[in-house]
Amino acid sequence: MFKFEIKRKAGKARTGVLHTPHGSIQTPGFVPVATRGALKGTGFQRAKEMGADIFMVNNFHFYCKNEHQVVKRAGGLHNFLNIDYPLMTDSGGFQVFSLGAGYGQKTGKLPHKSVAGSDPAMAKGGKSMVKIKEDKVIFKSPFDGSRVEITPESSIRAQENLGADIIFAFDECTSPLASYEYQKKSLERTHRWAKQSLEALGNRNQRMMGIVQGGRFEDLRRDSAGFMSSLPFFGFGIGGSFGESFGDSKKNMHDILDILSEELDENKPRHLLGIGEPEDLIEGALRGVDLFDCVIPTRFARHGTALTSRGRVNIKNASYKEDKKSLDDDCGCGVCKKYSKSYLYHLARKKEIYGIMLLTEHNLYFILNLMEKIREAIVKNDFSCIEKIRSRL
Amino acid sequence: MFKFEIKRKAGKARTGVLHTPHGSIQTPGFVPVATRGALKGTGFQRAKEMGADIFMVNNFHFYCKNEHQVVKRAGGLHNFLNIDYPLMTDSGGFQVFSLGAGYGQKTGKLPHKSVAGSDPAMAKGGKSMVKIKEDKVIFKSPFDGSRVEITPESSIRAQENLGADIIFAFDECTSPLASYEYQKKSLERTHRWAKQSLEALGNRNQRMMGIVQGGRFEDLRRDSAGFMSSLPFFGFGIGGSFGESFGDSKKNMHDILDILSEELDENKPRHLLGIGEPEDLIEGALRGVDLFDCVIPTRFARHGTALTSRGRVNIKNASYKEDKKSLDDDCGCGVCKKYSKSYLYHLARKKEIYGIMLLTEHNLYFILNLMEKIREAIVKNDFSCIEKIRSRL
Repeated sequence: MFKFEIKRKAGKARTGVLHTPHGSIQTPGFVPVATRGALKGTGFQRAKEMGADIFMVNNFHFYCKNEHQVVKRAGGLHNFLNIDYPLMTDSGGFQVFSLGAGYGQKTGKLPHKSVAGSDPAMAKGGKSMVKIKEDKVIFKSPFDGSRVEITPESSIRAQENLGADIIFAFDECTSPLASYEYQKKSLERTHRWAKQSLEALGNRNQRMMGIVQGGRFEDLRRDSAGFMSSLPFFGFGIGGSFGESFGDSKKNMHDILDILSEELDENKPRHLLGIGEPEDLIEGALRGVDLFDCVIPTRFARHGTALTSRGRVNIKNASYKEDKKSLDDDCGCGVCKKYSKSYLYHLARKKEIYGIMLLTEHNLYFILNLMEKIREAIVKNDFSCIEKIRSRL
Repeated sequence: MFKFEIKRKAGKARTGVLHTPHGSIQTPGFVPVATRGALKGTGFQRAKEMGADIFMVNNFHFYCKNEHQVVKRAGGLHNFLNIDYPLMTDSGGFQVFSLGAGYGQKTGKLPHKSVAGSDPAMAKGGKSMVKIKEDKVIFKSPFDGSRVEITPESSIRAQENLGADIIFAFDECTSPLASYEYQKKSLERTHRWAKQSLEALGNRNQRMMGIVQGGRFEDLRRDSAGFMSSLPFFGFGIGGSFGESFGDSKKNMHDILDILSEELDENKPRHLLGIGEPEDLIEGALRGVDLFDCVIPTRFARHGTALTSRGRVNIKNASYKEDKKSLDDDCGCGVCKKYSKSYLYHLARKKEIYGIMLLTEHNLYFILNLMEKIREAIVKNDFSCIEKIRSRL
């Protein structure tokens, strides 16, 4: 029932199909994030109609208050959400990093120098304590302040309760700015946790991805890729909070993806965690990444930002007040076919829910359509269209 | 192009079809409110699919900052919203009342004893000043504090700019608690304003409803109904902020509707303004009301309240945490067919936008479906089904 088939290759890039018991995913593919089991601003069915064929739910948000138990009693996420689409859950490692990052900024007591988390729910810097032990992490819940522990086993147990098709090993997500010494020590822990995560998996209807870490250091990344490839994971997550904005993280990400494309078992799917800006989707796919997940399309929509073929558009800008043109001439989505920038400006300025719904739809369509164009380019082995898109972003 | 046809009668109740250049409306019908040109939590098309065939936009929200000019330059609401459905706009009288009500509560300086407005945007009690003059109202904008004037002519001019099919005369909406003296004086003004509104109408593609006022006083209501029937209005609004919760307002509303059904020209449509609780829709339709508008389905949804055949359900109630049943066994909407109360509880508790979207869809469906059942009962002249529904609400 689970199978990853590579269909075509072009340089490091490849297209494929990932089969799961709930359906198949065209790769390279984008995974919209339904943090708490809902897409913020649209429905699963609508996203599916626009080309999404798998969704990501965040284990962390169901873990902290044991709500994964409620989902288990409801028969798992597929029953709870009543959808028959492939689902994945992450392990919680990234959210723990985000928590710790907020804490570290205020007190400097974190073991590694870190950067701000990107999840507003986590942005309670100073209030949250994260302790990373050899066998677990301990932190104050950002939701109610209670003490929470996550071990590799408890993360997997919760992910089993949620019952997504594809789950992730529990890892320590480090800051790209952390020292070599810290990264090395952390990587040993992440590798140990990866084995423990695999050993904890008891559900035969789930497959697990191991997460490659190693920060910005080539030897550590090679080491991690080799280690993960040696274990019976279904595929690989590529971690490291590249999504954060600082320094030369993008070039660093490209270099690391180049390295990983050499080191990772090429027959298994590769998921670049938390990445979703249009240029990164292109760069990642060209370097052999098969899956991406990111909150950008939905989060940007809530802030009035549209992703377009000419780059980002802040629809609340006064220049759009009476602009009768659509968001993006080149976009075939229902919003661009139907609505003016003027109406979208009006809705965003007035904080209308419908404005969020429309921008969410546009942004998701834009990203899913970009992935389709990337797949076409790989199949044709002709990247001129993608080069043109990239040059205008 | 504009025409109101009464099809069947049963007692005071009647079914009919209201024809407009943008389509026909089955009556008795419910008019969802798209305050600022958007339904809060769903799209026009979705609402249309569920049975809505006309929508109400609030003139006041486009008036205060002259945004009706933007809409005019966009070609009117139908172009701005890009919908081809019948639309109506109200005059702004009710919103002025809401503003004044908030003011009056704090200072007691309003000429009539009044009650709280129901629009949160207006709920800035004490900050807004309303002066009702013989020829206009003057108030502080609740949006930016600027001084705003509305005259019958300026209300109609703005409504012409918005370009809805059906518009309303400018009136003074009084408190049901106001004294006889105040109501009488106010009614003279409202009647004068009604004539001025009619005289101001220059757009041949719009039809105007005159608004009957008169508070809780039978003779004033009869007087107002007679006066409005004597003018060439297309139909009648029935005003008076019955929607507010106080004293015996519901019984009072029923009594007044009984009176008006005798006094109003029976060949013209009657719109009960701002009313939309299920029991009021039934009571109103039985007394010959043809149209209702109300924010209840959408506003309740944002607060986690579902309208069901067993009355209101607060989905955030802990008892629904693991309730696998649907919101309403008797409801055929997409939400009730698909989702458990447990999932809706989860979404509402987590303040997920998708939770608002689903409850909005359910509530609108519930109300629109109720109207359909009321129409069927009138056609069959058999109200047993409606009696059963009413007994369970």
